[in-house]
Amino acid sequence: MTYELYYWPGLQGRGEFVRLALEEAGVDYVDVAHQPNAEAALVTFLERADLVHPPFAPPFLKHGDIVIGQTAAILLYLGDRHGLAPKAATGRLWVHQIQLTIADLVGEAHDTHHPLGADLYYEEQKPEALRRAQRFRADRIQKFLDWFETILARNPDGDAYLVGDSVSYADLSLFQALEGLLYAFPKKTRAVLAEAPRLSALRARVVQRPRISAYLQSGRRVTFNEQGIFRHYPELDR
Amino acid sequence: MTYELYYWPGLQGRGEFVRLALEEAGVDYVDVAHQPNAEAALVTFLERADLVHPPFAPPFLKHGDIVIGQTAAILLYLGDRHGLAPKAATGRLWVHQIQLTIADLVGEAHDTHHPLGADLYYEEQKPEALRRAQRFRADRIQKFLDWFETILARNPDGDAYLVGDSVSYADLSLFQALEGLLYAFPKKTRAVLAEAPRLSALRARVVQRPRISAYLQSGRRVTFNEQGIFRHYPELDR
Repeated sequence: MTYELYYWPGLQGRGEFVRLALEEAGVDYVDVAHQPNAEAALVTFLERADLVHPPFAPPFLKHGDIVIGQTAAILLYLGDRHGLAPKAATGRLWVHQIQLTIADLVGEAHDTHHPLGADLYYEEQKPEALRRAQRFRADRIQKFLDWFETILARNPDGDAYLVGDSVSYADLSLFQALEGLLYAFPKKTRAVLAEAPRLSALRARVVQRPRISAYLQSGRRVTFNEQGIFRHYPELDR
Repeated sequence: MTYELYYWPGLQGRGEFVRLALEEAGVDYVDVAHQPNAEAALVTFLERADLVHPPFAPPFLKHGDIVIGQTAAILLYLGDRHGLAPKAATGRLWVHQIQLTIADLVGEAHDTHHPLGADLYYEEQKPEALRRAQRFRADRIQKFLDWFETILARNPDGDAYLVGDSVSYADLSLFQALEGLLYAFPKKTRAVLAEAPRLSALRARVVQRPRISAYLQSGRRVTFNEQGIFRHYPELDR
């Protein structure tokens, strides 16, 4: 059965974390965001009264009769099915815990440009965004990236990947989060990465994985832009 | 092996979602927040260089050699061990998806009083909090609670619980989120609940569960206060 990924068209957003897992898994999937009338298809699906498990918001994945919302829950499902997480319970849960921490980082990165809420435009909350971004740059990027560097260093199976000795969905998501931070806050992120050799090596390692590399070069990946989670507003990266 | 729950003393916070699951499970646990020097114990633990799976932040649960951070990951673990989630994969994942949506609601409730970041005092971001809370009250409470009412209505096993016909950790967490919303935004939350009969009934059902009832009356539950996630500032509940 082919996977169908539903997400807003025109931005990477949270859908991109799912895409990277699907690409690494090498499975066929329909990316609804690339189809005609993508937004209408998404909204119509969400409003279906016959969904027993209606997602609260995109992204969501349809796989036969199964519909799963919440990025981390989708990845938990895909990780089990495609060897993108350890089989053993403790390692499986550790990957998930890392993913939830990446989600926290991604949420905070989003809030730098939308501190007053996602329903207002950036232009309506610019002074607040300046204050929030200042604190994010001063403190949070370092704190999160230090944690990732630490857990790489402590991995008993070596520092090539976050958990065990093979790639997991958390490695792919961390790569995506780093790409986003480098786009949105290049100065600070480059400075922190310069002191985080394991994290920098992980980033390079993910880029070189054949299927990820093919995807990045395929033209199917939407470029970062100011509709997404990671936005480059020069005034927020002083 | 006795569970040890680490969380900040003096507030319910995210630790309370874990406490409710432990209480419903009827297991012995050490609540480190109630011990002398709780904060120092927590910080010292987090800084241990020998932790292979160091949590990023509290709450975290220690169970023998296993240390788990991230509220939703802790609940995933406890749910499996204590019958607080379905055994079947689809139901188990659905409970988790609901939990992640509750976490989103809880995060947004927190951000009403800390829109510029958790490292500034409320008093340093009061005008911004007024704007953010206004939007949360006007729109988000209704949207989230409507979704919970809908999934109760669509549960094929009846509307007594969110998933299947028995209590899960998501029911307990939803109860906690409702209590918090009623504390922080009583006017709006009462108005929404008046139109959500299934959600109101679920809340009453959780309160009446013998172990939850005993816990609520035990004096061990910290009362809601203005150190926690759900804070009652009258100016934010106009």
